Amino acid sequence: MSITARDVAREANVSPATVSLVLRGKPGVGQETRERVLECAKKLGFEYTSSPEKRPTSTILLVVYKRHGRVVGDTPFFEELIKGVSDATYRHGYHRLSVSYFYATESRTEQLKAIRSIKCAGIILLATEALAGDIAQFERLGVPVVLLDSWFPSKRLDSIVIDNSRASFEAVHYLAKAGHKRIGYLHAGVNIRNFLERQSGFMSAMREIEPDEAANAHIVRVGSTVQSAYDDMCAYLDTNPELCTAYFADNDIVAVGCMKALAEHGVRMPEEVSIIGFDDTSYCELVTPRLSTMVVPKSAMGELAVKRLVELIRGETQGEVIRTAVLPTVVERDSVARKEDSK
Amino acid sequence: MSITARDVAREANVSPATVSLVLRGKPGVGQETRERVLECAKKLGFEYTSSPEKRPTSTILLVVYKRHGRVVGDTPFFEELIKGVSDATYRHGYHRLSVSYFYATESRTEQLKAIRSIKCAGIILLATEALAGDIAQFERLGVPVVLLDSWFPSKRLDSIVIDNSRASFEAVHYLAKAGHKRIGYLHAGVNIRNFLERQSGFMSAMREIEPDEAANAHIVRVGSTVQSAYDDMCAYLDTNPELCTAYFADNDIVAVGCMKALAEHGVRMPEEVSIIGFDDTSYCELVTPRLSTMVVPKSAMGELAVKRLVELIRGETQGEVIRTAVLPTVVERDSVARKEDSK
Repeated sequence: MSITARDVAREANVSPATVSLVLRGKPGVGQETRERVLECAKKLGFEYTSSPEKRPTSTILLVVYKRHGRVVGDTPFFEELIKGVSDATYRHGYHRLSVSYFYATESRTEQLKAIRSIKCAGIILLATEALAGDIAQFERLGVPVVLLDSWFPSKRLDSIVIDNSRASFEAVHYLAKAGHKRIGYLHAGVNIRNFLERQSGFMSAMREIEPDEAANAHIVRVGSTVQSAYDDMCAYLDTNPELCTAYFADNDIVAVGCMKALAEHGVRMPEEVSIIGFDDTSYCELVTPRLSTMVVPKSAMGELAVKRLVELIRGETQGEVIRTAVLPTVVERDSVARKEDSK
Repeated sequence: MSITARDVAREANVSPATVSLVLRGKPGVGQETRERVLECAKKLGFEYTSSPEKRPTSTILLVVYKRHGRVVGDTPFFEELIKGVSDATYRHGYHRLSVSYFYATESRTEQLKAIRSIKCAGIILLATEALAGDIAQFERLGVPVVLLDSWFPSKRLDSIVIDNSRASFEAVHYLAKAGHKRIGYLHAGVNIRNFLERQSGFMSAMREIEPDEAANAHIVRVGSTVQSAYDDMCAYLDTNPELCTAYFADNDIVAVGCMKALAEHGVRMPEEVSIIGFDDTSYCELVTPRLSTMVVPKSAMGELAVKRLVELIRGETQGEVIRTAVLPTVVERDSVARKEDSK
């Protein structure tokens, strides 16, 4: 006896119509019910794959945009972000997540053709490295687009981003609370919005939290890889600068490169110089001292992007365009010293 | 024969269990279904008011916070915002919206007691005039809180706000596209976040769009009522300043006050001075020239606030804290002149 939708309905305690809606990825069913139905279908071994023609709207496409690849790589940050999108896709009743890597350096036409061949209901564009001019080609594909990890003042597209100004505020606040007054910023010299926003956020936070020191706030510009950050920091240290007692780094990679340079120049961390990174990558536990950092809930960002895209696909918005920024939190390890004695 | 939940279920083509979930404001039912059930219940005249004890979670409380009342008043802007919250409350299956006005000038204890007496599932705090220090008393009430129309870097609370930096960008962009180079800013001298963000957004936008003019960008500080904006603008004009050819005003009220002063000083609008406001209030159609302005979808802001609060109440988030900013758009009327001839 083969399993029918009716069996699934009985098991899940819903109507067969509800089962049908869920399995076809249609609206009108709450998330809890949807999950229960999918679980029951799985448990009973009910096979519900219909032909792709019958459900052309059940695929969500995630485009990973690489303009230069200097930021977006196979790092834990982006792996988790992509996993967050993937998990949420299934949770919201969409059957398939298709991931396309778009390399801005290769033939645009060929790649767009490949993307167009994927019949999808909507696109999540991982736009970390993208510039405003890169976006139009995706808007023209005729399906809803949600931007992930960047946004553009000239574009009317929904976006899910990191709250960078708040991140800078929390980092400076955390360092100031530990007693630091001379607070500097290790800035990755790549022109992406996350880093630019962290920089201007850092300056505002300094003006607000340490107004006396803000005018002298030190920004050290270094490369965005471990090696180039190390090289640039070495060159900086060779000029014998007066160091701050604490630095906020654009991300863990930058922090780690600079820490290596500081250690080699005989600077004791965290006693002489404290550092806080960003991203909570695996580097944090590997370096000495273990790196304190800021973390954003990456799976939540993926979830929010999918949720918004699904609302757009289903026409459940009022046409408003929104930018949703997710707050980071501090992860305390050993790289920030308390400066109480210096008071 | 009296109407039962079963009749409603039949009419709405759902199970009686679904009807029960909807009428008790419980999760597990999609929004479409929820609306259909409520419509059918209404149509059949089904009475489902249970005692408040039985459904303690079906009320959402909107607190309208008035620190000084200089911004939050009985203006169309706030009326629409409150209506947006109200509509969304019912759409999401909550039965009652309770609106409390909190006057920071009156006894805090008495007012909090009154608020506490309302058994509610969650609070939307219209925080336009609030300062960070005003928020803790609401956090302590033990129900989820969503901030509407403001946010605080020191608070970990979800918020729905206007994208002010984008608003400034769009306003400056719009004026620049019309051929204006000398662009000024009519700034309301009240210390609320919306105005502060518009100001810093204006400066960034000028640096980006009109870099040659940014250093001389004129900020005229005026009062936040029609009368005080008029008085301050008159005083400014009496100093015989070199006027910009276009101004972005913090809101329509400020714009209208300044326009009156400009007209009385013999300045022709829009020929000599163009102005763009903010809020799209009824003033826009009443003044001469009719005022071009920026508008945010206020009902969408209300909807987003309720949607987020309901997610918090139902435990449907991953614990992330978010700030969702809604984009404004330009409403074209007659107060901005094209400057093509000046090129």
